[in-house]
Amino acid sequence: VVVDRLVVIGGDAGGMTAASLARRRRDAAELEIVVFERGGFTSYVACGIPYFVGDVVHDPDVLVARTPEEHRRRGLDVRTHHEVLTIDVAAREVQFRDLHAGTEHRLHYDDLVVATGAVPRRPDIPGIDAEGVFGVQTLDDGMAVRRWVDEERPTNAVVIGGGYIGLEMAEALVRRGVHVTLLEQAPQPMTTLDPDMGALVAAAMRDMGIEVVLETAATGIERVGRRVRGVATDGAALVADMVVLGLGVKPGSELAAAAGIPVGETGGIVTDDRMATRTPGVWAAGDCAELHHRVTGRPVAIALGTHANKQGRVVGLNVTGGGALFPGVIGTAITKVCEIEIGRTGLTESEAAEAGFDAVAATIESTTRASYYPGAAPVTVKTVAERDSGRLLGAQIVGREGAAKRIDTAAVAVWNEMPVADVAALDLSYAPPLSPVWDPILLAARKTAELIS
Amino acid sequence: VVVDRLVVIGGDAGGMTAASLARRRRDAAELEIVVFERGGFTSYVACGIPYFVGDVVHDPDVLVARTPEEHRRRGLDVRTHHEVLTIDVAAREVQFRDLHAGTEHRLHYDDLVVATGAVPRRPDIPGIDAEGVFGVQTLDDGMAVRRWVDEERPTNAVVIGGGYIGLEMAEALVRRGVHVTLLEQAPQPMTTLDPDMGALVAAAMRDMGIEVVLETAATGIERVGRRVRGVATDGAALVADMVVLGLGVKPGSELAAAAGIPVGETGGIVTDDRMATRTPGVWAAGDCAELHHRVTGRPVAIALGTHANKQGRVVGLNVTGGGALFPGVIGTAITKVCEIEIGRTGLTESEAAEAGFDAVAATIESTTRASYYPGAAPVTVKTVAERDSGRLLGAQIVGREGAAKRIDTAAVAVWNEMPVADVAALDLSYAPPLSPVWDPILLAARKTAELIS
Repeated sequence: VVVDRLVVIGGDAGGMTAASLARRRRDAAELEIVVFERGGFTSYVACGIPYFVGDVVHDPDVLVARTPEEHRRRGLDVRTHHEVLTIDVAAREVQFRDLHAGTEHRLHYDDLVVATGAVPRRPDIPGIDAEGVFGVQTLDDGMAVRRWVDEERPTNAVVIGGGYIGLEMAEALVRRGVHVTLLEQAPQPMTTLDPDMGALVAAAMRDMGIEVVLETAATGIERVGRRVRGVATDGAALVADMVVLGLGVKPGSELAAAAGIPVGETGGIVTDDRMATRTPGVWAAGDCAELHHRVTGRPVAIALGTHANKQGRVVGLNVTGGGALFPGVIGTAITKVCEIEIGRTGLTESEAAEAGFDAVAATIESTTRASYYPGAAPVTVKTVAERDSGRLLGAQIVGREGAAKRIDTAAVAVWNEMPVADVAALDLSYAPPLSPVWDPILLAARKTAELIS
Repeated sequence: VVVDRLVVIGGDAGGMTAASLARRRRDAAELEIVVFERGGFTSYVACGIPYFVGDVVHDPDVLVARTPEEHRRRGLDVRTHHEVLTIDVAAREVQFRDLHAGTEHRLHYDDLVVATGAVPRRPDIPGIDAEGVFGVQTLDDGMAVRRWVDEERPTNAVVIGGGYIGLEMAEALVRRGVHVTLLEQAPQPMTTLDPDMGALVAAAMRDMGIEVVLETAATGIERVGRRVRGVATDGAALVADMVVLGLGVKPGSELAAAAGIPVGETGGIVTDDRMATRTPGVWAAGDCAELHHRVTGRPVAIALGTHANKQGRVVGLNVTGGGALFPGVIGTAITKVCEIEIGRTGLTESEAAEAGFDAVAATIESTTRASYYPGAAPVTVKTVAERDSGRLLGAQIVGREGAAKRIDTAAVAVWNEMPVADVAALDLSYAPPLSPVWDPILLAARKTAELIS
């Protein structure tokens, strides 16, 4: 009996999902599975870090869905603190370093899963390595931020970058009683929204006491000794006794690229819909891979646990003889910052124009419940449609409690390429404590449809 | 210039929406619009009544979306306390009574909209007219129930019927400190759910202190003088100082039927997808009309404000030269009873079997947020699919806060006849405070898909 060996690089969502599913489908007598993880954790929930920093979640252990030891008990050879240095695709070998022992070795693979995740974007400015400047990519990063907040009791934090992680960290620090300034180069926070919707987010954040500084770039970190004391910008300087980098991430594809595994213009590893790379025997899953955007038809890089998990499943099935396909994404995302909930799916009006669509858009204001029902919260919905076909291209939601998750309704409509007139006629649910009689998505779709007909 | 006359029978959601939209599209010089309403209110939110009884909503006025006077100011000849007695479809006339003056008259119509709503089902049992026995169909009913609770301070209420209105009235009375017994003939409350999902509702209601008496029918109302003192059943008798009838409604189609306007086997007026009845010049909108169910392909009677509003719009457009279509329904509905939220769309497993589908179903348990996030509430999702095609036929949700409205995601998938395997791959939104990384709908769809492949 020949035992094949599956090697997985990266012990988080994409890699461990693939490894675990492969193990459930093939036992150790058929398939050896080795997972290399540079850090000390596996299967941790990076997106939970802001809630640990904000002390919404008290124990970092709950962010670890499954420890290395738990994976090992399930028959996976998980090697933490092991870094893969090179991939030799011709010899089908990886060269790795045992970070504790300091030794280097090579290992043959029959199938290789590259699940190297994402790397945070760091601004190339002087002082970026000062004490008190934090990224928030790994659980170690999260613990370092939290320790700083707990022990140093900072007064003023500057969050550089107004995307998902920036907003979530702003919320976390507000919860901890820190005065927060959000610094964003664009004219709005949340550049994944159209400017009009982003402006709603900025206004709401200001109402919550967060300082929002727009169209301003950090030019340097000011220090006292090694320690941060402020942020220099191309506008006014900002006082800060801590700085959080929330500039988002890019695909961690350097290792693959160095091995000659093709990487696309998005910076992500190119795969087909089976999640096979263009290199025989090599698969990719998670944030390191680029995704097919179903609306634009173009590749896109979106770092998100849901995609990583789904891709991990596809790889886990396919390396064990399955025929699973990953059908692509439509850019659905939600977040919250304090009481504000934000959702988006498909294309914004700007993105639609950029992708070459002749698009129309309409925005409505409604409530999350019947307007007379206590707790009815405002919600603004914008829908974007292709002018000729009427096809729903995307939707955005900004509102209060209960607003964001409604984006899924629009997501399924975008996925199915429904015309907005049909969306307006959908049989969506209604009960006064849970929805107005005209669901906000229906209203927005109807208003958009009226621009077309 | 010939001025046409549009006559509308019924001044609630279906009728007033049709009348209002027709007025916006045609001014009084072109179209006279007369609305007959038997009661004193127009455009009131019947579904809000339980929340007024429960004192969640304090002022009944907020349940009136637009008063007769407001409608009149917008150019509608709204005649409240006027009851239409007969329709003469050959002469295109209605015969009506001015209930205050006691006089009868006839009026010619060019187009007629029948929007006579629904009539509550009343059990044909002795004592049903006793003091303290209430229906909850009209705003007057609602005010009578509330007055009884406010003034008589009842101790024990029996709610007869465990459907939407029964559950909502149970919640309302619990809120007012009344001990509630829910009496249901079926083996479960919420017979619009499968028994396994209905059992979750029963268990949750019992946990909240509501007595749930199943497989038991009321056989009579026991009285002291004219006043209720209990409910006799085919099981044990129940003590009650108030009784609420929550047996649901049937289409109020008697007037139309008497005029020879065809009524279907559901009891609702038959229309085409333009909402035209089979009688020239006569349209129908709202609870009095039967609906096309897109999954079974059969007619169905579902009394719901969303459908009435949409149909009213279709009629308002079509009577003024438009070409609007009502595309039918898929039986989406939600409700809540205290902390329990309930949603359903499409077909249950039982309904699928009844409709002749070879169906498979799977149920999963998950949470409304990431499991480690505070406030993560349990949610159970059941999905039903056609075995051969994999097509999603329906979904049911029972859970806590934030659970019910997620049914819309499944509703859009059912509407688009998506295979469950494709549903499982949908790009739905994720953020720890708002959703687990695998959305519960995805999990249920995946589990159902695994039964097929």
